[in-house]
Amino acid sequence: MLFRPVPKLKRGAEVAVIAPAGPFDKASFDKGLERLAERYQPQFTPGIFSSHRYLAGDDARRLAELRAAFAQPAVFCARGGYGVHRLLPSLELSELKPQALIGFSDITALHAVYGLAGFRSLHAPVLTQLGKQAPEIVERLFRLLESNAPAEPLKGQGAIGHGTAEGPLLGGNLSVLTRLIGTPFMPRLDGCVLLLEDVGERPYRLDRMFMHLKLSGVLERVKGFALGELTGCEEKGANYGPLDVLSELIAPLGKPCVFGLPIGHGEVNEPVVLGARVRLDTATRTLESLEGLTE
Amino acid sequence: MLFRPVPKLKRGAEVAVIAPAGPFDKASFDKGLERLAERYQPQFTPGIFSSHRYLAGDDARRLAELRAAFAQPAVFCARGGYGVHRLLPSLELSELKPQALIGFSDITALHAVYGLAGFRSLHAPVLTQLGKQAPEIVERLFRLLESNAPAEPLKGQGAIGHGTAEGPLLGGNLSVLTRLIGTPFMPRLDGCVLLLEDVGERPYRLDRMFMHLKLSGVLERVKGFALGELTGCEEKGANYGPLDVLSELIAPLGKPCVFGLPIGHGEVNEPVVLGARVRLDTATRTLESLEGLTE
Repeated sequence: MLFRPVPKLKRGAEVAVIAPAGPFDKASFDKGLERLAERYQPQFTPGIFSSHRYLAGDDARRLAELRAAFAQPAVFCARGGYGVHRLLPSLELSELKPQALIGFSDITALHAVYGLAGFRSLHAPVLTQLGKQAPEIVERLFRLLESNAPAEPLKGQGAIGHGTAEGPLLGGNLSVLTRLIGTPFMPRLDGCVLLLEDVGERPYRLDRMFMHLKLSGVLERVKGFALGELTGCEEKGANYGPLDVLSELIAPLGKPCVFGLPIGHGEVNEPVVLGARVRLDTATRTLESLEGLTE
Repeated sequence: MLFRPVPKLKRGAEVAVIAPAGPFDKASFDKGLERLAERYQPQFTPGIFSSHRYLAGDDARRLAELRAAFAQPAVFCARGGYGVHRLLPSLELSELKPQALIGFSDITALHAVYGLAGFRSLHAPVLTQLGKQAPEIVERLFRLLESNAPAEPLKGQGAIGHGTAEGPLLGGNLSVLTRLIGTPFMPRLDGCVLLLEDVGERPYRLDRMFMHLKLSGVLERVKGFALGELTGCEEKGANYGPLDVLSELIAPLGKPCVFGLPIGHGEVNEPVVLGARVRLDTATRTLESLEGLTE
């Protein structure tokens, strides 16, 4: 499958800020907004501050906000959490326009829809995380939006298996992605390099989620694995970690895997382009991007 | 789909005890075993006490133990936890013989396989839970194994929607069941009354799991919902509970639902027959069983 680049974003352009998933901390939002406003003109409605249980307002509000954002050249998501799955049945692929989608975690489900519509999108810090990222990360994110240069090559902490793998980068958050299995919204992972990261999931849960991917048959057609952060996934008092569990499941598949990439819920969340071709190399432990986000 | 009854179990028969999922507490096991030994001759191998991380021994051990148990007229599972999913790719439906399978929670995944092979099975306390159940529950469990009488009618705490629904009872643990979606091991839920219970899952997770079922399209063909216990699924400090969340997702489906049934991880875990026809009635808040487990 080929994923089309989206139009370049101009400095000073109007960009949408939306909260399609969970409610967020106002201070973190303001801090991220400040960064964003140094480069673009962020637009949002007061409804973004809505909070209903674990959702940033009801489904109708979040859906209307998302739909309105389709008209903008870029859509920054305020936070992940949970909530995109609830909007999916109401979305039509034909509604989506070529634009830059920016976010991660629960936004993985929205990236999936953009991918199914044939667009590349930007797996990168959400707005509430943006203020906590180093200035270089923010600058790299902006550069990806404004030029067609590929993302910086990223170095992992280690590798499983041997060799290289090349294909479009797909995936994102393991919990969120696997909650799309067997639905019309599951990305077609054939030939891809599969990105996986997660937060706050105990090792047995990571095992169960990875097994779900395996049992669904999609891993047979995946070319390799790019593992990001597994933040707070340690089992208290255990003599094994989340990576031990995933390694043992990945190794028998005989596909190259680079782990410990600085992507996800850790202190550093490097922007990478979903749908762009990447090259994984276990010898150098690198994830090299071959394509950028924009035309 | 029709689910065949299995042969009756005789008092004093040899029965298998296996641990296909998580490791367990020896004292709880011994207590349950004592109860079981009052009626049957429980057989197990010392390997059942194996423990590797969150598993009762490695996959090969648990698989061999399960396979050996196929020769017995009944298989009691020691505990749920997690681990059955890891064995599924190695199982062939043709290996399964008509026999009584007893368990719940992670054993939901094994019930799914027995159901796909066309057999009814017994959603009931695992061995480590058996010693903590009231004697009447244990007696009812044994009676289901030894006669073809249906399970006792169960009363729920409330209902959603109006009306009755009749069909085979399928499902079990929500977390475990939804980790089969999009795999060859997912039960065919067409025309069924769907049993759901869970433990230790925060409300947003229950929401995400229920949405997963919905997005996969299977709920359209479900006739009604039988909700068991949602043990320890409360969100700390929240002014809403797990049932509020599930109710709001179930109500718009316009299908009868009885909730608060004494099935699952609570103090009372009433045995019910998966694959047996049941009748759900919102007026009386009852789950009435129309068929038993055995021939």
